[in-house]
Amino acid sequence: MSVTAPQGFEAAGVAAGLKSTGKPDVAVVVNRGPRKVGAAVFTSNRAKANPILWSQQVVADRVVEAVVLNSGGANCFTGEFGFQTTHQTAEKAAELLGISAGDVVVCSTGLIGVGDETFRANVLAGVEAGIAALSADGGQSAAEAIMTTDSVSKTAVVQGDGWTIGGMAKGAGMLAPGLATMLVVITTDADLEASEADALLRRATGVTFDRLDSDGCMSTNDQVTLLANGASGVRPDLDEFAAALTALSQELAQKLQGDAEGASHDITIEVRGAASEDDAVEVGRSVARNNLFKAAIFGNDPNWGRVLAAIGTTRADFDPYNVDVFMNGVRVCTAGGPDRPREEVDLTPRATHLVIDLLVGEATATILTNDLTHDYVHENSAYAS
Amino acid sequence: MSVTAPQGFEAAGVAAGLKSTGKPDVAVVVNRGPRKVGAAVFTSNRAKANPILWSQQVVADRVVEAVVLNSGGANCFTGEFGFQTTHQTAEKAAELLGISAGDVVVCSTGLIGVGDETFRANVLAGVEAGIAALSADGGQSAAEAIMTTDSVSKTAVVQGDGWTIGGMAKGAGMLAPGLATMLVVITTDADLEASEADALLRRATGVTFDRLDSDGCMSTNDQVTLLANGASGVRPDLDEFAAALTALSQELAQKLQGDAEGASHDITIEVRGAASEDDAVEVGRSVARNNLFKAAIFGNDPNWGRVLAAIGTTRADFDPYNVDVFMNGVRVCTAGGPDRPREEVDLTPRATHLVIDLLVGEATATILTNDLTHDYVHENSAYAS
Repeated sequence: MSVTAPQGFEAAGVAAGLKSTGKPDVAVVVNRGPRKVGAAVFTSNRAKANPILWSQQVVADRVVEAVVLNSGGANCFTGEFGFQTTHQTAEKAAELLGISAGDVVVCSTGLIGVGDETFRANVLAGVEAGIAALSADGGQSAAEAIMTTDSVSKTAVVQGDGWTIGGMAKGAGMLAPGLATMLVVITTDADLEASEADALLRRATGVTFDRLDSDGCMSTNDQVTLLANGASGVRPDLDEFAAALTALSQELAQKLQGDAEGASHDITIEVRGAASEDDAVEVGRSVARNNLFKAAIFGNDPNWGRVLAAIGTTRADFDPYNVDVFMNGVRVCTAGGPDRPREEVDLTPRATHLVIDLLVGEATATILTNDLTHDYVHENSAYAS
Repeated sequence: MSVTAPQGFEAAGVAAGLKSTGKPDVAVVVNRGPRKVGAAVFTSNRAKANPILWSQQVVADRVVEAVVLNSGGANCFTGEFGFQTTHQTAEKAAELLGISAGDVVVCSTGLIGVGDETFRANVLAGVEAGIAALSADGGQSAAEAIMTTDSVSKTAVVQGDGWTIGGMAKGAGMLAPGLATMLVVITTDADLEASEADALLRRATGVTFDRLDSDGCMSTNDQVTLLANGASGVRPDLDEFAAALTALSQELAQKLQGDAEGASHDITIEVRGAASEDDAVEVGRSVARNNLFKAAIFGNDPNWGRVLAAIGTTRADFDPYNVDVFMNGVRVCTAGGPDRPREEVDLTPRATHLVIDLLVGEATATILTNDLTHDYVHENSAYAS
């Protein structure tokens, strides 16, 4: 049910000719109210796509009534024409829905530099078809229409005490901090104030999507949008809601990790014993971005030396000669030297658990990443062809 | 001739059983004077191998008489035993050469965590055999003994006005800023003061080895050592010497780039029009470390969108919508949009030239990197096996 699981939302996914395969490529999600609260977080990349530039303006007043998403073209670095395409997309949706264009968020994903007149015509036709197809159980079709190299659609639903949160996500590469070619729409019928929605979304994304770092590459197009309409009539307990929103975000983040381009291992990097959470994040990310470590995991090689070499590049508070490293439960390094024999580590399962204990404090953080594989290289060298 | 090209240096490379292949794996370079000036730069990785910890002490007084190098084991994270192995290596060389152990630099390369009793015994035997084999034309054999996954030995010689500089280098992966599994020894018979040698080495490495960023992974074992003995009796013009040392360092850096593990393209990233050299370096490095860009080049795909996405993650002074990008001479992006058609770009040659003009200032910097290939993944997933 994805984004249409909560009351008062409609969605649809349609094929508009943007994908050469003829698969669905335009999705529309509409909030039927009564409230039209919207919040969003955007890529921190300074090279932002046109839909990001547009949507940042839309959410400034924290009112969002509809989200239009397209795959098959990022509409990024397509010049003034490209920005006008995004603007026209919002205008078209607004006109058909009888709302203001200033309340329509637009998201695009696909190749950078793609956004010509054909693209524009297809997107606008897709908006029309998508709005005509809107339905209270259109969540699944919307989730399918935003897929690019994703092999499966990603949705999640969490039930609260009288309210529901639903979400859909796409993304299978360029996943990195500050989000990355990741488009996520989350809906809820809980009754939230705009400021609450914004704070809750930032809190949840900060420890979930922001800690997914599949390949260290930050996208130009990422956004995570939360729509809240209060249709349940229930004011949630904010801590309960925060926990539910975080759980749903983590579930979607794990689905993105599990479908990362070409990956053969889902690596959970758990950093413990750090002096601060920032230190723990920096250490986890340094390992998540180390190509030599990632290639070793692909080869089922418990190469803890590469873990320490990566940690050594950080400014975190730790003693390089007093760190414990566990791989899938086996302590392979302690006190600046080898511990258990590497033969004891079984790296054949897809789920890989790396624990780094810095032994200096109490703070922890977990980063999700993937291995570096032949297929990753292949898919990303062939992506444009 | 490599390190024995200048007068007054002897070298040798011998097989000591550290490599399972039986190939040479211990090298010795000795400065026969009259002066014993030494300078070195080390990895900035905080996780430093035992030979780094030792050699940092040795060069503190800027006197170096000999360098012992081994491949077949990094002697990193091998505990107190490993540090004692390095110490004993220097003691052994000093005893046989009749010099002080405090003037013997030690360098190691190979797998982290390798440095047991067999390793120690082999290294010590190698020191003995290497010193017995020292010769004034042993430079080539020394260059071969430090190879790991290198496919060719790397040497260079530059002639000055009455003086000579010679050098050898190894390294084929983990090449990153602050150097990376890169061992370099440079010798000269020019007459230099210790403070001059140190300053000249830092100046040369800062714009050559430090700007080679093959895979973003920083090693635990890198060092570049310069030995100067004044045997030519010539005080060089310092600007001329600096230019010659920089040229030799750049030649060795390019040889390292050209032999990087699994690479199929040598990518020169030239950043122009930056507000500062620091900005230019940051921009160049962000692109050099972007796996999606690197995989695209492997696939001969002129994917300039990934270049802009990488630049957008920096803090450099620039306008993302006013940057020019050239690939092998073709301007593919200008003013926030596509320029010449991608079909005009020929990426089939190994030498790849990317120019990024930030259009805000006069500063420039060039970063050398490689593409991300199937073979890179393969070699680094299988390295330990």
